[in-house]
Amino acid sequence: MRLVVIGATGRTGGEIVAEAGGRGHDVVGVATSSDTVEDVRVYPNTELPELLGGADAAIDFSAPAATSEYAETVAEAGVPYVVGTTGFEDSGLERLREASERTAVLKASNFARGVQALLAVVEAGVEALPDYDVELTETHHNGKRDAPSGTANTILDAVDEARGDGDESPLDRTHGREGEHPRDASEVGVHVRRAGNVRGEHELLLAGNDEVLTLTHRAESRRVFAAGAVDAAEWLAGKEPGWYEFGDVL
Amino acid sequence: MRLVVIGATGRTGGEIVAEAGGRGHDVVGVATSSDTVEDVRVYPNTELPELLGGADAAIDFSAPAATSEYAETVAEAGVPYVVGTTGFEDSGLERLREASERTAVLKASNFARGVQALLAVVEAGVEALPDYDVELTETHHNGKRDAPSGTANTILDAVDEARGDGDESPLDRTHGREGEHPRDASEVGVHVRRAGNVRGEHELLLAGNDEVLTLTHRAESRRVFAAGAVDAAEWLAGKEPGWYEFGDVL
Amino acid sequence: MRLVVIGATGRTGGEIVAEAGGRGHDVVGVATSSDTVEDVRVYPNTELPELLGGADAAIDFSAPAATSEYAETVAEAGVPYVVGTTGFEDSGLERLREASERTAVLKASNFARGVQALLAVVEAGVEALPDYDVELTETHHNGKRDAPSGTANTILDAVDEARGDGDESPLDRTHGREGEHPRDASEVGVHVRRAGNVRGEHELLLAGNDEVLTLTHRAESRRVFAAGAVDAAEWLAGKEPGWYEFGDVL
Amino acid sequence: MRLVVIGATGRTGGEIVAEAGGRGHDVVGVATSSDTVEDVRVYPNTELPELLGGADAAIDFSAPAATSEYAETVAEAGVPYVVGTTGFEDSGLERLREASERTAVLKASNFARGVQALLAVVEAGVEALPDYDVELTETHHNGKRDAPSGTANTILDAVDEARGDGDESPLDRTHGREGEHPRDASEVGVHVRRAGNVRGEHELLLAGNDEVLTLTHRAESRRVFAAGAVDAAEWLAGKEPGWYEFGDVL
Repeated sequence: MRLVVIGATGRTGGEIVAEAGGRGHDVVGVATSSDTVEDVRVYPNTELPELLGGADAAIDFSAPAATSEYAETVAEAGVPYVVGTTGFEDSGLERLREASERTAVLKASNFARGVQALLAVVEAGVEALPDYDVELTETHHNGKRDAPSGTANTILDAVDEARGDGDESPLDRTHGREGEHPRDASEVGVHVRRAGNVRGEHELLLAGNDEVLTLTHRAESRRVFAAGAVDAAEWLAGKEPGWYEFGDVL
Repeated sequence: MRLVVIGATGRTGGEIVAEAGGRGHDVVGVATSSDTVEDVRVYPNTELPELLGGADAAIDFSAPAATSEYAETVAEAGVPYVVGTTGFEDSGLERLREASERTAVLKASNFARGVQALLAVVEAGVEALPDYDVELTETHHNGKRDAPSGTANTILDAVDEARGDGDESPLDRTHGREGEHPRDASEVGVHVRRAGNVRGEHELLLAGNDEVLTLTHRAESRRVFAAGAVDAAEWLAGKEPGWYEFGDVL
Repeated sequence: MRLVVIGATGRTGGEIVAEAGGRGHDVVGVATSSDTVEDVRVYPNTELPELLGGADAAIDFSAPAATSEYAETVAEAGVPYVVGTTGFEDSGLERLREASERTAVLKASNFARGVQALLAVVEAGVEALPDYDVELTETHHNGKRDAPSGTANTILDAVDEARGDGDESPLDRTHGREGEHPRDASEVGVHVRRAGNVRGEHELLLAGNDEVLTLTHRAESRRVFAAGAVDAAEWLAGKEPGWYEFGDVL
Repeated sequence: MRLVVIGATGRTGGEIVAEAGGRGHDVVGVATSSDTVEDVRVYPNTELPELLGGADAAIDFSAPAATSEYAETVAEAGVPYVVGTTGFEDSGLERLREASERTAVLKASNFARGVQALLAVVEAGVEALPDYDVELTETHHNGKRDAPSGTANTILDAVDEARGDGDESPLDRTHGREGEHPRDASEVGVHVRRAGNVRGEHELLLAGNDEVLTLTHRAESRRVFAAGAVDAAEWLAGKEPGWYEFGDVL
């Protein structure tokens, strides 16, 4: 399979290049600066249109602004498009939706099987304890720029959905408490830790009635995400235009 | 409601006396040594038959050998019987089953709502990651005599049930690893920590594919268990003879 | 010993009344609303001056504004004063300093032995890994109004002191990250979780070089704090005017 | 520097080859089966004597039985010898001691800076809370054969040393609790979890007085250990015969 990896010089991008190469795919990389990653040549992003010719799929782990631009180019080339970039504004998501009318788009905030399991577990926990207080803590490496992580937002959406069958209004997401700050029953605290080279940890805490339930996922390497992204690209190649989810791949 | 609390001088027993008294029930305690707990008179267990006269329910948090004996007395008196004692041999459980032919018996290894939630969460997690390695760690105060806790065994039963829809054979429960001890895929490690005055913590760890999912419940006070036990007694009073579960109460 | 407990109807205040009573002290309580706590009569705070007559010590776990006012009254009466209130503005601390010129004042953000141990441990960890990123997470019950906890601030002060022997400038305390928020090497994240009835947990995370060190203290009951506060009062009774620390008591 | 890596095809061995190669060293690998690891040729261990000719240092992460044999060969060749193998019997350690009379030997159970920090932290914690119950839990990948880890034993030695200035007798190390098992004040529970591909986690829990202190180190990649081992080899090259510790390197 011929694969274009956008954002190839990033932390996860480099792992994807290695993973795809290890599986025997024909890989080319694209990034803002040309370079070589894991023996794979990386081209400047201006050459993207040409590189897409003959590609079976593209995987994009760059940045929101960049992805918003690439989306049209990839759609025009009709290449199935796996997007792992996080931190989009609404307009960025809109561009991806538009692209999905012309090519197959699979966007996910997290490509780890265990995170899909965490979402199932969060749903079961919140349904069993709907009136307990909820707090979310996520930890990533100190170079991550967006806060909270895309996965954190996905988890919080799952919490909202699990409470009262969606009839309840969503919880107010509180980012940081300082000074006089009494907790309101309708809020959910969101805590963003950035430190060292932590691969990615998400913990949901449910507390009430003198007891605490904590549900935690931790990635031990970025290979987890890279493997899932390449799985997704293999699965998406040849699919009809449309919007796909990572859950479909599993 | 008139309530007899057996094992009234124990850690959880004392909390039950306080909780039931606080709710306005008429409480008498029974224990090996007569005493007073939370303003409630505690009688020696030899007086149990007399005390059961006119009781609406009995709650027993004593020890396996004692409960096995009391079971017949309570059954004879026809008093609904909530049992929180853990660490039974098979013969002890048999006695409880026999008692349930003559009176309503509700036996649970744990009376916390959050532990019921943990069981739901464990089921969801194991079903999503059926091939991951499983390890269970539980922590209780340094005075707890049985190992592992009744709740730990209940969680392990839930793990077995969630794997392969019960077609798979149960995992081998490994209690302690020392020396040359390679892990077998069919084993589950069971780790029993005893320290300080820890109220009760259970953690299930699922690991594979460079990622780790941990599901943890922690009780912050024994009041959690006491409240659940009194809830159960209130619910069981007046029920037909038979075998009941704490999940029915919720 | 005759003991006046200010803030007697609060969570920790109530525990202090029980603990001191259990030790055989003669206890009276003071609070904004008169009531009875653990069989001890609680007087309105307007009666504080009278109640201080003949007292051997006062313990105050009320609120910053209240404590700032009481400080003068207690100093005037010459009664040794244990202060566990947290969340003061600078002016409030100033009032306590003034009071310490006329009576013995012992102010601490935390009266648990284990928290003193945590401070020693934090110092050792930061000295061994001075260039690792630091993040602090604290969790308390949903009724706590000030953020972060006084103990959290004490821990952060200890971190600053342990880095570079105090020559380094203190870390910037970041309360909440949202949106585009790249981490600066000079910042320390401070995360305030409020949920259920959590007694108090503080966790310092140090990360760098693909490894993570976490140092965590958890109180399992408020009795820990109550016992330490009564220890402090017993120790402070009869001391000269001045400023004392909880470390002196241990 | 010319470096011989013994156990080059193992998990950590492979990382050492990559790390040393990345630093520009001239690396050859040795293992039971010849192969190629990270572009470095691996020779069968029968060729070890020849390969040691001209080597500046050897790093051994193989298995206890193998290392016991290699020790003499390396000593004879007079090559400085970094040993990361764990799980030795006393006789194996004896062989290493003998080897250190003829060449420089540095043996460590763990080459992570953070683990050295953990040891400092454990010492501070145990000294502050000498009468609290201690439990140790360690977690490693499911292929690790020895239990508990060498690092776990090093931590337990540090606990013994910190209690009562070494006058106290060492704690009884309890590996697994099952059935009727009341805790004795003189015991320390040792819990060995094996699951997935966990790089290595060690947690010391101290509990008493209704509070819990936990001190935890987690490696996020084996590169941590590999980097420390290569650091040690660079430091050991040219040293006199004798016994060295990893703490000397830092």
